[in-house]
Formats: sequence, C-alpha cells, structure tokens
Amino acid sequence: MTGPFDRGKGDDSLGPLTTDQGALSRLSLNQRTTASWSLPQAVQGCVDAGLGAIGIWREQLAEVGLDEACRLVSESGLRVSSLCRGGFFTTADPVEAEASEARNREALEEAAALRAATLVLVPGGLPPGDRDLEAARVRAARAIERLVPHARELGVTLGIEPMNPIYAADRGVISTLAQALDIAERFDAEDVGVVVDTFHLWWEPGVADQLQRAGERILSYQICDWITPLPADTLLARGMMGDGHIDFAAFTRSVAAAGYQGDVEVEIFNADLWAQPPAVVVDTMVKRYLDLVEPYLAG
Amino acid sequence: MTGPFDRGKGDDSLGPLTTDQGALSRLSLNQRTTASWSLPQAVQGCVDAGLGAIGIWREQLAEVGLDEACRLVSESGLRVSSLCRGGFFTTADPVEAEASEARNREALEEAAALRAATLVLVPGGLPPGDRDLEAARVRAARAIERLVPHARELGVTLGIEPMNPIYAADRGVISTLAQALDIAERFDAEDVGVVVDTFHLWWEPGVADQLQRAGERILSYQICDWITPLPADTLLARGMMGDGHIDFAAFTRSVAAAGYQGDVEVEIFNADLWAQPPAVVVDTMVKRYLDLVEPYLAG
Repeated sequence: MTGPFDRGKGDDSLGPLTTDQGALSRLSLNQRTTASWSLPQAVQGCVDAGLGAIGIWREQLAEVGLDEACRLVSESGLRVSSLCRGGFFTTADPVEAEASEARNREALEEAAALRAATLVLVPGGLPPGDRDLEAARVRAARAIERLVPHARELGVTLGIEPMNPIYAADRGVISTLAQALDIAERFDAEDVGVVVDTFHLWWEPGVADQLQRAGERILSYQICDWITPLPADTLLARGMMGDGHIDFAAFTRSVAAAGYQGDVEVEIFNADLWAQPPAVVVDTMVKRYLDLVEPYLAG
Repeated sequence: MTGPFDRGKGDDSLGPLTTDQGALSRLSLNQRTTASWSLPQAVQGCVDAGLGAIGIWREQLAEVGLDEACRLVSESGLRVSSLCRGGFFTTADPVEAEASEARNREALEEAAALRAATLVLVPGGLPPGDRDLEAARVRAARAIERLVPHARELGVTLGIEPMNPIYAADRGVISTLAQALDIAERFDAEDVGVVVDTFHLWWEPGVADQLQRAGERILSYQICDWITPLPADTLLARGMMGDGHIDFAAFTRSVAAAGYQGDVEVEIFNADLWAQPPAVVVDTMVKRYLDLVEPYLAG
C-alpha cells in the first residue's frame, strides 16, 4: 500500500472523480470480460488501455492475496469499481447460512481493503428441490440485513444486483430493479444500494423510472449486450455492446439522469470473447464504449 | 358442425363448465406439447385421455382446413381452450403492419368458428436492427387497439400473452403480467384479457397480486415448468410440470383465487418430449396435472 497512487487506507473519501484522464476515465474492466488474465495481468491491461478502474473478482484476488492485490491496485492508480462478489445467501439451512455469512464478511474485508465502490451481492437461486421463490427472496433480504452492520463498520456499501429472470431459479432470485430497491430502501443509502447491469434490466418495464428512483443508490453501472440467439450456455450468454439488442444510449442517459457519476464497468461472460486475446477484447470494448456509451454519460 | 357435441354456432354461451367428466374436465392439451400429432390425431388423443379441451395451433389447423377442424372439434365434445396464435405486430413498417393485421383478422375468424376461449396474442420482438423496446411495446398496444373492433364483432376475446424476458428481444416485448394488464385494462374485459403462462410469469415479483388484479381478464391458464440448465435452444426450453422449479400449487391457488374457472392448458415446447410417443407424453402430463395442479384449482 505504498505505491504512487495510494489514496491511504484511512482516508474515508475517494474524492471527486478525475476527469483529466479523458474519455476513458470512467471506463472499468470487469475481470470476467478477460477471464484468462490474472489480476496482475488485468491491472496492467487496464493501465495500458488508459482505463480509470477495474472490477475485481475474488477468485483471481485469492491467487495473489489481498495485500499484493492492494499494492498492485494502489500503484496502478486504478479505482476498484466493484468487488465481485458476495451474496449467494438464499439457503434455508442454518449451517450453510452461517458459512455464507462468513464468506460475505470475508468479502467485505477485501472490499474495504481495496476501497471498492461496492461489494456486488448476487442473491443466489433456489436451494435444490426448493420451489418457494418468495421465501428465498425473504431469506436474501434477511441475509443482507445481517451484513449491514459489518459493512457499515468497514465503510463498504452493499450492492444488490437484480438479475435477469433467466437466472431466477439458479443464480439470482431478485429479478427487477424495483424489487432490489424495495429491499435497499429499508436501509440507509450509504449502507445498501443497487448494481445496475444492462443485461439484467434492459427489458424491465418502467426501468427509466426505477433508475430515477434509485438515484444515489446506484453503486455500479455494468454493461454488456443481450444477444440472440442466446448462446447455449446461458451463463455465458452476454454480448459485447453493440452486438445485441440493448439501446445503450437510452439506458445510459437514464443512468446519468439519475445522478450516477461512478465508473462504467464492462462485464461480459462469453466463450467467444474468452477465446480472443484479452488485449484485443479490451480494444474492442474501448471502441464500443466510446461509440455507444460514453457520449451519453453527461446526461 | 353437426356432431353429437355441437353446441351450436349461434349460441353465445358455452354454459357452465361440466364437472361430471371428473378430475380431467379442465385439462387441455396444447398442440405444441405433442408437436408430431396432426389436428385429428391430437383431437383423438385428447378424447382417448379423457381431457376436456384442446389448444389448437393455426399451422396444424391449416393442414385440415377450418371447416373440417370445426367438425372434428365439435364431434369430439372438446372445448377449444385457445387458438395459438395471433400477434407478432411490433413491426414499424406500414406494409408489414397491414399484413400482420390481415393475418390477425384471419386468426380471429378461425377463433370465432372454433369457439375458442381466446385468441392468444404473442406480441413479437424487436424488428431487426431496432433497439427501441419502448416504441415496440407502444406499437404492440396500438395493434391490439386496431384489432378490438374486429374481435368484438366476432365475439372473440383477445388474450395478451406476457412473455418471459428471455424472449423480450425476439418474441414478446410485453414482459410482465402487470404490463399486459396495463394494456388490457384500456379495453372492456370482454374484448381484451391476458394469457397466464407459468413459464413466463413464475418469477414476477408480486405475481399473486397481479393475478388478483387480473381477475376475470384471465382467459387462459397455460402451464409448463422452468427447468435448469436451460436447454440450448431457448425456444424449446420448457419442461414438464414437476421437472423444474415452479411451485404449481402456489401459482394455481393464486389463479383460482382470482376467480379463474377455465381450462388448464399444458403447453410444452421441448425437444426431448417431442422425441417420445405423443400418447406417452399425454399420459405423463395427465399424471403430473393430477398430482401438482388439479388439487389446487378449487382455490
């Protein structure tokens, strides 16, 4: 934590976003977009491309360890736009629930050390054989409630990620931004907010109104496209911006109109992209961002 | 139209549902569940299995012609729980829109002749290269508005089918029951209602409240399961009741509590099922219905 860009672990404020880095200052690479890169490689890739931030995954973080990760990030000057991911707390089993809470508290420690803008909470799906979606949603909300004191103590804001209903059974039982906000609004905005991902929310009726409602609770803006035909593995069904059906201009304008001034994180799970050299993927992502997203960030 | 079960074309009332057929009196086979069967075969299959109704597809209807279809259905004593399908009216092209309206008016004639409980309207997706989902939704609503006078004249009730967001781009831009009702409620309940399909709606937050809101506007209750992993072809991603994650007891209770007394139509698009002998599929469907759905229809 002694690099040239170290903001100081004890400093509570990240300060205003720098805009002098130019058009890419708010662009962030989520590590899943370049899945074959280790964390050091991804950090270097972001620096080489002139990006402002990185979205870090806990799996790659574990490979280098938290201290080394903090050093790398600090020296790079990158912001950590998100730590992916906490959550997966829909279990009805008390022992599993305790294990889940322990994992989430560990993730919170990491998010705090990395000064991540949020810890992304993926709710998790229905437990095996369980068909009570409503009860699973209630358990997810309660698990968030239990995490809040720990998050507050560490100065981390929890980010509920509503997920496309395609994942309602096996990945994320919170299905709309409206539903995520119904939960988030039970807490202070500095404790709990939402992660807005175009893939998950582009279809939601009234989403512009919900983004306006979210306002300062938007902790992360993640982007990728909805492509058809949907790839066979739905977990890898996301597309590069511009390859699918999402109107990024309209969605981005709504996010900007809600007051969001944070980073724009490109998170794409896609086997075809993963088969390409990561630097090429980053290059494409930068071009598409500049063409389809960045012009609309001013609102 | 001279068969033993002919209710008479000029009779405006179907009368109360017969319950003396027993536990299967409200069960309907949608033709897509047994895709290899022609209409005559499907009608015979329904009769053999003791079902009360059939959901007919226009493609198979065209193979035998409307008059012969009416004769078959009438002699069988089956109700036609739905005609599938009208809709696909999101085009922005005036010529295509006119062609779509002509197709829908033809479908209305068929639905009237068959005395179908509803003409199912699948809205259609985004036109190629078009990313304005909101505008496509508005066009769908306007197309419905244009059909209403024709439907009324023929005594057919239009059934808007909200579709799982997995199909928002390429098949159905109306994504929730709430959204479908927002459109349906602009019209008289005898003109426009909704088609409630568990596959499309099981995940919708607050769906029980929306079903209550729908009330008499529920024209059709279609069932199949949401299975994971989702089959590679998402158009064939539907599962037999009990094979997936949907709580049919809870959903069916909500449908019943809303006052629905119509048929329960099993509509499953699934390549594995289609590979089985259709009569075996019907047999399985009957067992699952009796186990998972029928006990909850009393509310």
